[in-house]
Order: sequence, then C-alpha cells, then structure tokens
Amino acid sequence: MKKIRLKNKQIDYPILIGSNIYKDIGLICKKYLEKNRVFIVCDNVVYDLYKKVLQNSFKKANVECIFIAITVSEKKKNIITVASLSSKIISHGVDRKDTIVAFGGGILGDIVGFTASIILRGLNYIQIPTTLLSQVDSSVGGKTGVNNIYGKNLLGSFYQPRLVVIDTNVLKTLPRRELLAGYAEIIKYGIIKDAKFFDWLQINGKKVIDGNTNARIYAIHRSCINKSQIVEADEKEHGARALLNLGHTFGHAIESLNNYKKDIIHGEAVSIGITIAAKLSYVEGYIDKKTYYKIENHFNDIGLQISLPKNLKKITAKKFVSEMIKDKKTVNKEITLILIEKLGKAFIHKKYSHSKLLKLFKEITS
Amino acid sequence: MKKIRLKNKQIDYPILIGSNIYKDIGLICKKYLEKNRVFIVCDNVVYDLYKKVLQNSFKKANVECIFIAITVSEKKKNIITVASLSSKIISHGVDRKDTIVAFGGGILGDIVGFTASIILRGLNYIQIPTTLLSQVDSSVGGKTGVNNIYGKNLLGSFYQPRLVVIDTNVLKTLPRRELLAGYAEIIKYGIIKDAKFFDWLQINGKKVIDGNTNARIYAIHRSCINKSQIVEADEKEHGARALLNLGHTFGHAIESLNNYKKDIIHGEAVSIGITIAAKLSYVEGYIDKKTYYKIENHFNDIGLQISLPKNLKKITAKKFVSEMIKDKKTVNKEITLILIEKLGKAFIHKKYSHSKLLKLFKEITS
Repeated sequence: MKKIRLKNKQIDYPILIGSNIYKDIGLICKKYLEKNRVFIVCDNVVYDLYKKVLQNSFKKANVECIFIAITVSEKKKNIITVASLSSKIISHGVDRKDTIVAFGGGILGDIVGFTASIILRGLNYIQIPTTLLSQVDSSVGGKTGVNNIYGKNLLGSFYQPRLVVIDTNVLKTLPRRELLAGYAEIIKYGIIKDAKFFDWLQINGKKVIDGNTNARIYAIHRSCINKSQIVEADEKEHGARALLNLGHTFGHAIESLNNYKKDIIHGEAVSIGITIAAKLSYVEGYIDKKTYYKIENHFNDIGLQISLPKNLKKITAKKFVSEMIKDKKTVNKEITLILIEKLGKAFIHKKYSHSKLLKLFKEITS
Repeated sequence: MKKIRLKNKQIDYPILIGSNIYKDIGLICKKYLEKNRVFIVCDNVVYDLYKKVLQNSFKKANVECIFIAITVSEKKKNIITVASLSSKIISHGVDRKDTIVAFGGGILGDIVGFTASIILRGLNYIQIPTTLLSQVDSSVGGKTGVNNIYGKNLLGSFYQPRLVVIDTNVLKTLPRRELLAGYAEIIKYGIIKDAKFFDWLQINGKKVIDGNTNARIYAIHRSCINKSQIVEADEKEHGARALLNLGHTFGHAIESLNNYKKDIIHGEAVSIGITIAAKLSYVEGYIDKKTYYKIENHFNDIGLQISLPKNLKKITAKKFVSEMIKDKKTVNKEITLILIEKLGKAFIHKKYSHSKLLKLFKEITS
C-alpha cells in the first residue's frame, strides 16, 4: 500500500492507495476514529455492491457502522440534500467524536464532505472515493460543495478529511466511460506541473484505462502527489491552487449549457475544456503548434472527447462566454483562465474581459 | 473609540467599540473591504430604523451597498433561511472580493455568518451587532450556526469575521427586557474568569442597564476582552472555550422545552441557566453558600430571571435532564457541564451521567 502525507501548518492527513484493501477497511480507518462508530454515507449503487464487505470489515475491527444510502446526481447536489442528510445523521444522536465516511464518487464526496463540515460545526470525516475521477481529484484537498440555482459548487467549504483511502479494485466495476472521464484529470497533472508524468502517460495511459493494476496505482499515486503539493502550498485557492482549474471554467460552462444532462458527464466536459485551454494557449502564442498537437493527440489516442457534442455545437460563442463569466472565479466581471506555458507548466492568466474572450473564442471555434 | 485585537496564529481582526459611530460606518468598514461593495443583511426592524444613516455613510465612503432585509426568529433560524439568503446574495453576481455585513441581533448574526462562510466556500464578513446580547457574545468569536429539528445550533461553522463594530447608541432603542437578557452574558464573564469585573458589575450594573454610555462601553469592552482571550486560546472549543457555555446547557433545554416561544428569550434562559449552574456548584460543594448567594443576589438586584417560569415549573426533572442530554456537547451519552470553582473561575466538569444528573436536579429543584 502506498502512502502520501498531505501536510502543512494547518493540515495533516494521509492518503492511502492500494488494491483490494476494502476487506481491511475497518482496521485501516480505526486508527483515525475518536470512538468506535462510523456513519458510512454511500450512494445506492455502491451500497448494493460493497455493503457486505464493508460491514464485515468494520465488524472485525469492532467498530459500529451505520449505513446511510442516498441517491446522488448533479441535480440533487444541492443544499436540500445536505439538510436532509444532516438530519438523518443527527437523528442517530451524533456527537463530536463521531466520524462520517463518504463512500462513493465525486458528487457524493462533495455532498458528504460539506455535510460533515457543518454538523456540530464540523465532524471528522474520511473519504473513500470509488471512481477514478474522485480518486485522483475531488477526494483529496478538502474542497466540498453543492450547486445552487445560479451555478455549480457555489455553496460549500474548505474542509479537510482525516484520511483518504483509495482502492483501485473498485474500478473494475466502473464503466469505461467513467474511467475516461477520470483520466482527463490525470492528464491535467501532467500538463500543469509534471512533464515526466505526461511522458509516462503517453506510453502507459492505455494500461491505466484497460485495467492494469500497477499502472493504475502509479497513475493515481502520481496524481495525488501532484494534487497534495498544490493543496499544501495553497489550501484556499488564493494562488497556485487555481492551476487545478485548467479546463474547468470551460467545462463548467459546457455542463451548465447542457443542463447537467448525463450525455456529458463532468470529466468529459473537463476533457473538452482542457483541449480548449490548450488551443487558446496556442492561439495566444504561449505554446507552439507541436506542443498543442502533442496534447490533443494524447486525448485522441486515449479516446477522450475533445470537441463539443453535436447539440452544443450550435451554441454561439456569445452564449458560451456569458456562461463562463458566471463562474465563481470571476472577479469584477473579469475572468481568470488557466493557460499552458509549456508541457508541465501552466499559469494563471488574469483579467480576460468579456469582449476579449469573445473574440478569442470565435477564433478558436471558427 | 476602543479597539480590541483578536489575534492568534490563525485569526486576526479588530473589535471596535464606540458610541454614535454608525454615521462613520462606511469609512470604518472600507479599510477591511477588498472591493468597494458590501451586502448589508439586516433584520426588518433595524432596517427601518437605520437604513438611511447606513446608506448615507457608505455613500460618503464611495462604497456601493446592497441591502437585504430579512425576517428573523429562532424558528426561522434554519438551513432553509440560509439557502434562500444565499440565493438572494448570489443573484447579485457576488464574487470572492465581496463582503457581507451582518447588521442585527444574535440570531441574524448567526444566520449571516453561516451564510457568508459557505458562499463560494467563504466570503469576508463584518459583524455589526445591534443588541447588547450580540455585542458582548455572539458577534465575537466566529461561531455561526442554525437550528435543526433535533436542536439548537446543530448546523454551522467556525468562521471568523474580518471586523466587529459595536455602537452602544443602538441600545437606546432596545427594549429593557432585551438589555437584561444581554446582561446575563456580561455577568457570565465576571463569574467564569474576571472576579474584578464581577465586583465592578455589582456597583455599576444598574448603570449599564439604565443607559449610562460610559458604563455600557466599559462593560462591553471588558466582556469582549474576556471573550477574545478565550477564543484566542481555543477557537474551536477543544477545551477552555467550553467555559463560555456556563448556564447554556440548562438554558438550551429551557428554550427547547418552551418550544422557543417568545415568553422566554435566549438571554433569559441563560440567566436562569447560570443560576442553576451556581446552585449545582454549591450543592456539589465547589462554592460556598456565601458565593452562591452573592451570584444569585446580583441577578436579583439587576432584575434578571432566576427561576423557571410558571409553565415550565411542572416539567419533571426527568424530562429536563433528557432534554439536556440532547445538547451537542454530549459525548457518549455523558454530558459536560460548566461549574463554578470560585468567583472568577469556572471549570469543565466532564461526564455527568443521566442518572447522576437526575439525582442532582431533583435535589436542587426540590
């Protein structure tokens, strides 16, 4: 089992990565509990698949576990779900020594992390992400949140887990489409800060998708190291953490314009978003044509989406840019975008105005 | 104008105390803004009384202000109100450099602080408390929160304001009953950590209630210093901050058993709660009879409530203790109470079991 320690002045917790470790999850978690009880919040899909193994493992560790299975979706990722989940947890007579476990994908983790952060002004929680996307991205770093009628993740908190446990074995039941969506975030680390990792992915990326355990562990481990380093330096996104948003402002606009329908899932929108960011970096003269094609070709090789789906192709640049401006990274109506300087180095480009962005956007989509 | 600086490794903000300073509030706040715009959330009562003066003052300081007036009550202090207030604020196109101002009493401050803490994962906010209770207690220290069907303040966050501004002038329009309710928290500081202040209150307490500006400023200043010292040492209530709960576990049970009806407001319940805690400290042998009467007599002299109101007198000790056990400070079904060791020193008495508490409670109410 590999271990990363996310540690700075305020934060200190481990990320454990291994294969087939759910059978020992009770003992693994026990060290981080303040009393022998956990609330395991999971989405209905993984509940059916893993309830037995988790239950047995916690029983073996002599830890009481209370399961709360909920239905999650981007539409239900809102404060009403947080309110009802809080009440379910509190109804069991929760106290400050209890621990909440988030067992599921990224949407579930965001909801449960936020809920844990506000019950009794903050309960301990553990992230056990069950999708590739959440394993390499949302489970690490303590961003929690839910959507609001005005946009994505507009309500939430910075709230760090006590422990993150990643089992690659769970990926065996994950649909290929979800694997690809997660892979988009993996490439992102290569592009923004780890050129060697990008090179490795060019050679081994297909193994990660196709199910090679060692390749998966390596890719997840490398991704989590990169993410940890960024979070350690800038937990609350005052600076460098924004690099993690490469492709995301575009991606969020795509999801929103598509009304969060399931024909474009988050990782797919991010995948398209990163290629838009790469093209913009090329058009703006920050990277050369060769680098741009190197990035786009890898997305193509792996089978990731790189262009807008049919139903969104008709959307005007104007509408797209207006949607982007709604992003929570917008300040004084000027938007901050993450662009690429070279493979392995991204930077924060501040102050794109509406009109400038519109002009550029027309250029790259023409 | 008096200034206190609440400062430790994580926190650093000033508490300003003066008289008739709202006319300069725009300039006072401006130094703490990241852009020239504020959202002033206030309750409908103070909105009518102070809108003009605030508006003019912010205009003079060249700061745009957007007023959002809401109706607050203990019943409406819930996550639904937070959700709707968040949406109102976000609908104006809020960004990370915006500041939220909470202008009102304790309930409003709790709601607005919590809302500010979750919009875009945390916006800057300023507390301008308008009741004596909120000026000496809830506006300082960053506890935010709302109630849940299972109890008081069960959902919330630790989230510090950027600035607290206290104007004693606003107390002139505050009903005497509300002044008395706030005074209960003032005495609390004397009892738990500041014997000299208790002595001062014995002599000057009536002046504070009756409207002497200097006495009010002194009492508020002294209270805020005491509270700041406790928060600096223990922001998240892992230890000494719990001392501030003197009388509150009893008080919360009283409010809850009374269904939060307005015939017992929070400060009144706390007032009764503190005298119960004093009696318990006496019965348990921690303080002598003289000290107990010294405390009770001061409550009597000032005109504070010290015994349960008629409609609650019929409630059995069993029901009362069961209600107390629901408190969020309960861990493993054992309750932590704050008791008094001597005037100016309280301590955390851990592990009162249900049965022990029941026995004692029967004794002190018989």
